[in-house]
Amino acid sequence: MELLDKLNWRYAAKAMNGETVAEEKIGRIIEAARLAPTSSGLQPFEIIVIKNQELKEKIRPVAWNQSVVTECSHLLVFAAWDTYTADRINYMFDLTNDIRGFKNEGWENYRKMLLDTYPKQAIETNFNHAAKQAYIALSMAMVAAAYEKVDCTPMEGFSADKVDEILGLHKKGLKSTVLLPVGYRKEDADWLVNLVKVRKPMTDLVTVIE
Amino acid sequence: MELLDKLNWRYAAKAMNGETVAEEKIGRIIEAARLAPTSSGLQPFEIIVIKNQELKEKIRPVAWNQSVVTECSHLLVFAAWDTYTADRINYMFDLTNDIRGFKNEGWENYRKMLLDTYPKQAIETNFNHAAKQAYIALSMAMVAAAYEKVDCTPMEGFSADKVDEILGLHKKGLKSTVLLPVGYRKEDADWLVNLVKVRKPMTDLVTVIE
Repeated sequence: MELLDKLNWRYAAKAMNGETVAEEKIGRIIEAARLAPTSSGLQPFEIIVIKNQELKEKIRPVAWNQSVVTECSHLLVFAAWDTYTADRINYMFDLTNDIRGFKNEGWENYRKMLLDTYPKQAIETNFNHAAKQAYIALSMAMVAAAYEKVDCTPMEGFSADKVDEILGLHKKGLKSTVLLPVGYRKEDADWLVNLVKVRKPMTDLVTVIE
Repeated sequence: MELLDKLNWRYAAKAMNGETVAEEKIGRIIEAARLAPTSSGLQPFEIIVIKNQELKEKIRPVAWNQSVVTECSHLLVFAAWDTYTADRINYMFDLTNDIRGFKNEGWENYRKMLLDTYPKQAIETNFNHAAKQAYIALSMAMVAAAYEKVDCTPMEGFSADKVDEILGLHKKGLKSTVLLPVGYRKEDADWLVNLVKVRKPMTDLVTVIE
């Protein structure tokens, strides 16, 4: 299966060579993230695509000084909604009605249910939930990058507060959850590139109940 | 790009026809989940694969009575570690050393750092972190299903406590985070199958910083 070949090919590049990734490729990587399914279809995140080198230089020190932050072509920041609000929920339900061209009672009842629950929940609960949805999109972006023969490095090792401050995410109601530098591996500087991929064996991962 | 065609083809089936999905296909779907990258490579989750119909019947009432729970071929339960423990961290680092055939000082220092931080963190923080990793795997499983022309329905609408109880996950140190019924769509009973896919436009999803 070709997909499994792609997933075996990909790895989290630890050094990149600074080469620019073509915009068509970046476009398809982000389109994969856009198509990711999310809870109630809310897509509770945004993606900041940083091409600006000075900005990458500012982020690197608050990201454990990892070199891929500045060596990448595009630095993708997956920023989740800080919470669910009525406006945000209504935006997606209205968009759905607009695109599908009709209103549906069941759908409107579902909207009401979300409006009655999400905005009342603890902000931290909502943010954690939104962040998980962002990870679904992150994952699809990584698969797309592999299909494009482009490397990427999912990174949680950074100060979210500092990145939020640098990017002014707070005033947009967003919090950074994961970084994804996208670029091309620099093999001779990468300690990981030639190491065997390690995964738990199936027996430790899966329990089948017949 | 073929991947985008697959992502446009997939949707969250709301009715399935009970047809069995071939084991080779299920195997590749789970292999995609196994290959998913996770934070520090810890793979902090397990997958319960339920083929047993009685068990599916037991879960359906605690999953908003959604019909796909019993109409699917295989019900996948993504269950995240309830917390990070020294044993769990050591297992993955030891496995890595075993598979790669050598010990590395940097890697051992990294192990020490995780041992010094994760087990001391709040259980809830650890579980939320582990759950996000499970979502990366969930996402790759959904992509793989699309390549297999198999339907699936990511589901958060269930009582995690009740599912944990039914499956005895508590004593394994696991908590269910998301369900993925896998099977084949039943078009004439599915209200969603013919509706247009709705996603935010790129302009509302992405900010590019040149």
